Amino acid sequence: MLDQIADVGRDLKRGGYSRHGYAKPELELRHWFVEQAVKRGLNVETDQNGNLWAWWGERGDNALVTGSHLDSVPGGGAFDGPLGVTSSLQAVDLLQAKGFTPNRPFAIAVFAEEEGGRFGVACLGSRLLTGAIDADKALNLKDPDGITLAEAMKAAGYNPDLAGKDTRTLNRIGQFVELHVEQGRGLTVPVGVASSILAHGRWRFTFAGEGNHAGATLIEDRRDPMLPASQLVLAARKAARGGGRATVGRLVPNPGGTNVIASTVDVWLDARDTDDERTRAMVAEISEAAHQVAKEEGCELKITEESYGDTVYFDAQLRDDIAGALGGVPALPTGAGHDAGILAAHVPTAMLFVRNPTGVSHAPEEFAEQSDVDEGVKALAATLEHLGS
Amino acid sequence: MLDQIADVGRDLKRGGYSRHGYAKPELELRHWFVEQAVKRGLNVETDQNGNLWAWWGERGDNALVTGSHLDSVPGGGAFDGPLGVTSSLQAVDLLQAKGFTPNRPFAIAVFAEEEGGRFGVACLGSRLLTGAIDADKALNLKDPDGITLAEAMKAAGYNPDLAGKDTRTLNRIGQFVELHVEQGRGLTVPVGVASSILAHGRWRFTFAGEGNHAGATLIEDRRDPMLPASQLVLAARKAARGGGRATVGRLVPNPGGTNVIASTVDVWLDARDTDDERTRAMVAEISEAAHQVAKEEGCELKITEESYGDTVYFDAQLRDDIAGALGGVPALPTGAGHDAGILAAHVPTAMLFVRNPTGVSHAPEEFAEQSDVDEGVKALAATLEHLGS
Repeated sequence: MLDQIADVGRDLKRGGYSRHGYAKPELELRHWFVEQAVKRGLNVETDQNGNLWAWWGERGDNALVTGSHLDSVPGGGAFDGPLGVTSSLQAVDLLQAKGFTPNRPFAIAVFAEEEGGRFGVACLGSRLLTGAIDADKALNLKDPDGITLAEAMKAAGYNPDLAGKDTRTLNRIGQFVELHVEQGRGLTVPVGVASSILAHGRWRFTFAGEGNHAGATLIEDRRDPMLPASQLVLAARKAARGGGRATVGRLVPNPGGTNVIASTVDVWLDARDTDDERTRAMVAEISEAAHQVAKEEGCELKITEESYGDTVYFDAQLRDDIAGALGGVPALPTGAGHDAGILAAHVPTAMLFVRNPTGVSHAPEEFAEQSDVDEGVKALAATLEHLGS
Repeated sequence: MLDQIADVGRDLKRGGYSRHGYAKPELELRHWFVEQAVKRGLNVETDQNGNLWAWWGERGDNALVTGSHLDSVPGGGAFDGPLGVTSSLQAVDLLQAKGFTPNRPFAIAVFAEEEGGRFGVACLGSRLLTGAIDADKALNLKDPDGITLAEAMKAAGYNPDLAGKDTRTLNRIGQFVELHVEQGRGLTVPVGVASSILAHGRWRFTFAGEGNHAGATLIEDRRDPMLPASQLVLAARKAARGGGRATVGRLVPNPGGTNVIASTVDVWLDARDTDDERTRAMVAEISEAAHQVAKEEGCELKITEESYGDTVYFDAQLRDDIAGALGGVPALPTGAGHDAGILAAHVPTAMLFVRNPTGVSHAPEEFAEQSDVDEGVKALAATLEHLGS
């Protein structure tokens, strides 16, 4: 089913896909999803935060909800997000084919801007829904072209004035199950369930020095923010010990000319560890090193926490119930954030993982075997039948 | 006179100006120059490499030529380039006002894409004119959006098929004098003359690792090209000793997502030193370090020399002649490249520098006092009168 959308949002420069929230390819995928849902007799509505809901029958309380997201990181893979959406649709196919009707309201949800690939904050749709991010703060987030979330929503036909915590919609969810491609090499069988998500945050380090001419400026006269920015990358690697993960994948010197000493450099740090204490300690160690190297180069440093989420432990009862219904599949933690992690603070939430043979994700090479994908659909259908009977 | 173009090509994101070769703001400046030249009775033509020539009287051999460029680095200042063009026009004003007529052909030249801010190679217009760059190589250079120089020239109404070494035009130049804002703090008087330009090259380092998920990938499984890319920045600083200058002002991780381990990183090194041997040794030291750190992270490294120019010594006789005519102004070397440096290999060439109080250049803060600018115009007029009498 992923073949149907294989041509949408290809990134010819980076490889893979760039399908960012409310940009053309993601809007195209939303239309495709609506078509697919309608074809299955589902009733589609959009909530006030731009998340899509496809109801099998009437919408209502204590709903059984599955789904994922359609957006990608820049140059991402084909599976992260869309696999959960296509599997949800195919699980409905399997259940409808066998004449199953859920005993309670049932919906497929598609969450907006899960990756934060455009506005820098991950899980924007589910964060807005649950109130995990303030609406004003979210609506003023800017993409690299300076377009705010509010402007992007408006341009896509949504009303940003309505965005914000949506208790009515949240309260309808009785249980949420998200199927996702695994993003490490933690699975040796086709399907598993999630136990927890690492604590995870994003910090922006802005180093300010003095922009100048790369040829005419003596080394001793320089205050070049690229120096501390580079040392930050090394400090992050050094601080990521014992399972912690610290990554700089985005670094933007301004103005970015070859023959120009940068005046400022923005560096984004992605840091994750098993719990809050370890994550905070790692970021503190990196920040301290960054302040030190900035000072040595005569640069200013401003650190902004762009997002943070503590460790998520998925509902143990639901997890064990599903693992049992699937014949005892393994439970494993993940380093990746998900809308399911945001919802977990409010409703019983579970995740199914489909084996990733190389562990590569957020890259064009992201892959899952077709046979494992099929097993994932069957497992999701079985889970939904089990929970909805 | 710079006030007339103060609103063209402002870069609201970076500050300062972004006026890149054949992009809209630079084309607007070309139109403005043609208007100004015509207003002074000059005859404007464009050569086959997109350089503008405004002739005072008939064009012909052994011409006295002055001028500079109108394009900028990304987020550059108001003076680098345009000051030489406005000063040329104002020098003509002064000479015309006093009834002076040059005793030989006389032209103001405006060279195309001097900064290499769009296509990555500096002094493209003068390099093409002199054959210092192969036409095919130049025409296939791409800007960050993948547009080639050939396409950009065509879109601007020029015929790229004609681009390449232009002996006829080059042979017309008897002497070339370029006025420019100084780009260090080497002048304590309003005006000086140039003695030499440092040897200067640009190298692109492409590190290739494995793109992956920033949260789900264990540190020990990573081949993250940001690590060696950062170490390159530090190695460049370390290797720039005893007057050498090595700068990384442009670094682009691909895909550039916050929660994505980069698959590749492009880093541009700008390196300059007093002579070829020292410059080559510095770049060799940096390259060796880069290969070493790339290997340690399991990354591939490809190094491409994008441009290189040996030390330029300006014509000593012309330099001393001008310095004397101006009452004994100082001569000083510069670390910045110029079209005058390219032309110097073919014709007697000189430069006048106007004092820069802070030494800042290639940045919005680039500045010269109005009184120094006026002294520069007077000095250029006096130089042209001296050489053209």
